[in-house]
Amino acid sequence: MQAPVRAALKSIVGDAHYRDTDGDLVPFSRDATPLFSARPDAVVFPADTREVAAVLELATRHAVPVVPRGAGSNLCAATVALHGGIVLALTRLNRVLEIAPSELLARVQPGVTSAALADAAAREDLLWAPDPGSRTVATIGGTIATNAGGLRGLKYGVTRDYVLGLEAVLPTGEVIRTGGRLHKDVAGYDLTRLLTGSEGTLAVITEATLALRPAPRTSGTGVAYFADLATAGRAVDAIISDGVLPATLEFLDRSCIRAVEEFAGLDLRTDAGALLLFGDDGEPDSVARTMARMSDSCSARGALEVTTAARIAEAEALLAARRCTLPALSRLGALTILEDATVPRPRIAEMVERIDRIAERHDLTIATFGHAGDGNLHPTCVIGSRENTGAVARAEHAFGEIFSAALELGGTITGEHGVGAAKFPHLSAQLGPDQMSLLRRVKGAFDPAGILNPGKLGS
Amino acid sequence: MQAPVRAALKSIVGDAHYRDTDGDLVPFSRDATPLFSARPDAVVFPADTREVAAVLELATRHAVPVVPRGAGSNLCAATVALHGGIVLALTRLNRVLEIAPSELLARVQPGVTSAALADAAAREDLLWAPDPGSRTVATIGGTIATNAGGLRGLKYGVTRDYVLGLEAVLPTGEVIRTGGRLHKDVAGYDLTRLLTGSEGTLAVITEATLALRPAPRTSGTGVAYFADLATAGRAVDAIISDGVLPATLEFLDRSCIRAVEEFAGLDLRTDAGALLLFGDDGEPDSVARTMARMSDSCSARGALEVTTAARIAEAEALLAARRCTLPALSRLGALTILEDATVPRPRIAEMVERIDRIAERHDLTIATFGHAGDGNLHPTCVIGSRENTGAVARAEHAFGEIFSAALELGGTITGEHGVGAAKFPHLSAQLGPDQMSLLRRVKGAFDPAGILNPGKLGS
Ligand SMILES: Cc1cc2nc3c(=O)[nH]c(=O)nc-3n(C[C@H](O)[C@H](O)[C@H](O)COP(=O)(O)OP(=O)(O)OC[C@H]3O[C@@H](n4cnc5c(N)ncnc54)[C@H](O)[C@@H]3O)c2cc1C
Ligand SMILES: Cc1cc2nc3c(=O)[nH]c(=O)nc-3n(C[C@H](O)[C@H](O)[C@H](O)COP(=O)(O)OP(=O)(O)OC[C@H]3O[C@@H](n4cnc5c(N)ncnc54)[C@H](O)[C@@H]3O)c2cc1C
Repeated sequence: MQAPVRAALKSIVGDAHYRDTDGDLVPFSRDATPLFSARPDAVVFPADTREVAAVLELATRHAVPVVPRGAGSNLCAATVALHGGIVLALTRLNRVLEIAPSELLARVQPGVTSAALADAAAREDLLWAPDPGSRTVATIGGTIATNAGGLRGLKYGVTRDYVLGLEAVLPTGEVIRTGGRLHKDVAGYDLTRLLTGSEGTLAVITEATLALRPAPRTSGTGVAYFADLATAGRAVDAIISDGVLPATLEFLDRSCIRAVEEFAGLDLRTDAGALLLFGDDGEPDSVARTMARMSDSCSARGALEVTTAARIAEAEALLAARRCTLPALSRLGALTILEDATVPRPRIAEMVERIDRIAERHDLTIATFGHAGDGNLHPTCVIGSRENTGAVARAEHAFGEIFSAALELGGTITGEHGVGAAKFPHLSAQLGPDQMSLLRRVKGAFDPAGILNPGKLGS
Repeated sequence: MQAPVRAALKSIVGDAHYRDTDGDLVPFSRDATPLFSARPDAVVFPADTREVAAVLELATRHAVPVVPRGAGSNLCAATVALHGGIVLALTRLNRVLEIAPSELLARVQPGVTSAALADAAAREDLLWAPDPGSRTVATIGGTIATNAGGLRGLKYGVTRDYVLGLEAVLPTGEVIRTGGRLHKDVAGYDLTRLLTGSEGTLAVITEATLALRPAPRTSGTGVAYFADLATAGRAVDAIISDGVLPATLEFLDRSCIRAVEEFAGLDLRTDAGALLLFGDDGEPDSVARTMARMSDSCSARGALEVTTAARIAEAEALLAARRCTLPALSRLGALTILEDATVPRPRIAEMVERIDRIAERHDLTIATFGHAGDGNLHPTCVIGSRENTGAVARAEHAFGEIFSAALELGGTITGEHGVGAAKFPHLSAQLGPDQMSLLRRVKGAFDPAGILNPGKLGS
């Protein structure tokens, strides 16, 4: 990066908020995605929308890449600076600007964490529904830009369903406001949802107006064990066919159950082939009823055992089993590669079977857990040592086959983690060449100089 | 339109499905929007996606405008052929292709009506939630292309919330498939929602995969009368603050109550200044509870009278009062101009007051009803005679002021009816010049020759 650009950046954000020493850049060279890293030329921490606009305008003028970044917790190498340039860290824009209970909405800056927003909402008896596993660190900007999901997707949807309006800066420096405070607003193309999930490639989000919901009064959690995933899958179908849309419906396969039990000692049944965690929230009597109906559906479809938590502490322990799956698996090896191929719900068991066969063929350990309610699987490959380049290469092949299997079953290469640099090579298999070139033209409509997060979506 | 284009059109769709006589074109010269009409050069009725693609490819090659059209029930002159050309009527693509109860989804062609889809879903005990007032005629293609709302918006959202995937033909003839059968799918920019609400200006929808919900087991309806809209507004705030998100929350102002009573003789209280219709659906006990809570909120905020329907027939009669508001108002004059300015919910009373003052100033009769739950107002201007050009001109001025007032209060010029030709002149007041030119660039990414519905969104 040329000296004049460096000087201009410093004068925009102030010396204290500009970094470019090796030590400064190391943490910004990677995100939560294993195997990907690239060194940016500088990191800047703007204070407000005006500074963001000035940085972008400068970058477009000098054709310098800019990678917007929240917490860097994404799992698809979406914040790796493939072509160097500037990392634009939005963590200083971290204020909750407004919680409006009478309108069921919040207005926040992009650097607020998901957990901080949820806490602010809870103080007004309101719920911020999207709950990615990374909620304590993940920023709202990153959560919107990846359209993050979470554990409550089936009943509550994904981030997209809660974004009412955005302030965003175009790569050329103009500030636009899309949508607003309304649930119904059809004035213009839906840029609000186009920016949601655009992975920092179209514009930089500098403010968001988000829908909240009344906080549910109570919740319930239960667990059912099955001999195998196929049986668990039939129980899930039975629950949905019974007209229940539960808040939680998560599964663990045999390997995950064992890893979690070893890790956390929760008295899980390690002889089971599948564990189904189910839960609901709302009014006490309606929660009691859906819990009973889900228990019945599990029993009727051959569960080995069904328990519902009688106390909050028990419910928390059950949810912890699901939440600690990834750390539990990570302990099994030095390298954990997590994916999120997704298939139509009735195909879950078939998909997990295919994953198992692919793992076997490539001599890999792949455990699978995920959101049974929406078919969102997280096949996780555990490799003993990072130096085992043979295994890493085999894992890459295996995931390629897993993506193909998901597409064959009518699914997607990514349900919630995003495309980033990690899955970009697989995207055209899903979308086809005509849609790929349409994406490039849409990208060009926003970012004529191609400075925003190059090498990813829209490239 | 040149003779070779006409010949080519006939050979694509077949002689029987090509029309261009004056008599044929009259019904396709206007839609449900008063005051707008323009004659196309021809109407074609393609049989399938292949024929749609061939028509579009031809039109792009010869730079002939194409206006996609479903039932033509839109209220914003979105299907008026401002620049002549071809009306592409999608009514022959009218098959429900699939209802998949285990995946809670339907796959349909664009010409299926909203009511036909709702019926097909109901046979499987499922709900197609979007319910525009025009549901018996409106097509799914038009409903998606306008992102239509309806009476259930607060609890159930709008059409956008139910579109999982689309097959669409680009103006240049390529067929793309966006999204799919999944609730969670983040592979690529969200073209599914970009096409939703794009008013036939970006691509032609030839198939849609739509989310259904479990059908609610029961529903309840109640009515509350208030001295004025400000008091009714406070009751609405109280209902929402109490943590209830009801399925129905509609209001009528004094003029609407009187018009409906004269029209339908439903024993409404014509001495009231506002009527609030409230309702919920779901499990019997939860409906009973929310109905009681909403009744209490209304009473506590000074309702003159609150009644809940004890029987289905009574509930239907109450809902009919809301549904017949537009026909009731239409009877009062020869010309009824319906708008849908929308404001944040707490500003409804203020907005209606402003509308009343604007009507007075311009010596017009404007009655207002709408969706209180989401601030979506339908101010309706009734003019005695179409020949009264002075009144028509005054109405146009008045609506301009109404839009400005909505924007001033943090609202939108259109909550659900769309922009079309009717509100296009007002759009830049809401979006600003930078966003207007971004819309044009997005339009260009889809439609380089500018053939699709020119003179509307993206122009
Ligand atoms: C342990 C763990 C659990 C997780 N669980 C889930 C889960 O359950 N569901 C799920 O969906 N994801 C999950 N994730 C992935 C990730 O945490 C989420 O997607 C998260 O919302 C990303 O937020 P972030 O602030 O870390 O974004 P980052 O990683 O910093 O950025 C993500 C993307 O957003 C862009 N971006 C960031 N801020 C902005 C902005 N202001 N404007 C424009 N673009 C911006 C970046 O350029 C990048 O493309 C998990 C990750 C981990 C490590
Ligand atoms: C009495 C009445 C009540 C109404 N109530 C409501 C209401 O409650 N809520 C609401 O939101 N609206 C309402 N409307 C407006 C309108 O009926 C709806 O928006 C309806 O969904 C439009 O469907 P349609 O088939 O008539 O579309 P059309 O009017 O034919 O077309 C509407 C737009 O969609 C485009 N289009 C149509 N089909 C396609 C396709 N296959 N691909 C791409 N573009 C396409 C057209 O080009 C046009 O821009 C009402 C209208 C009337 C007359």
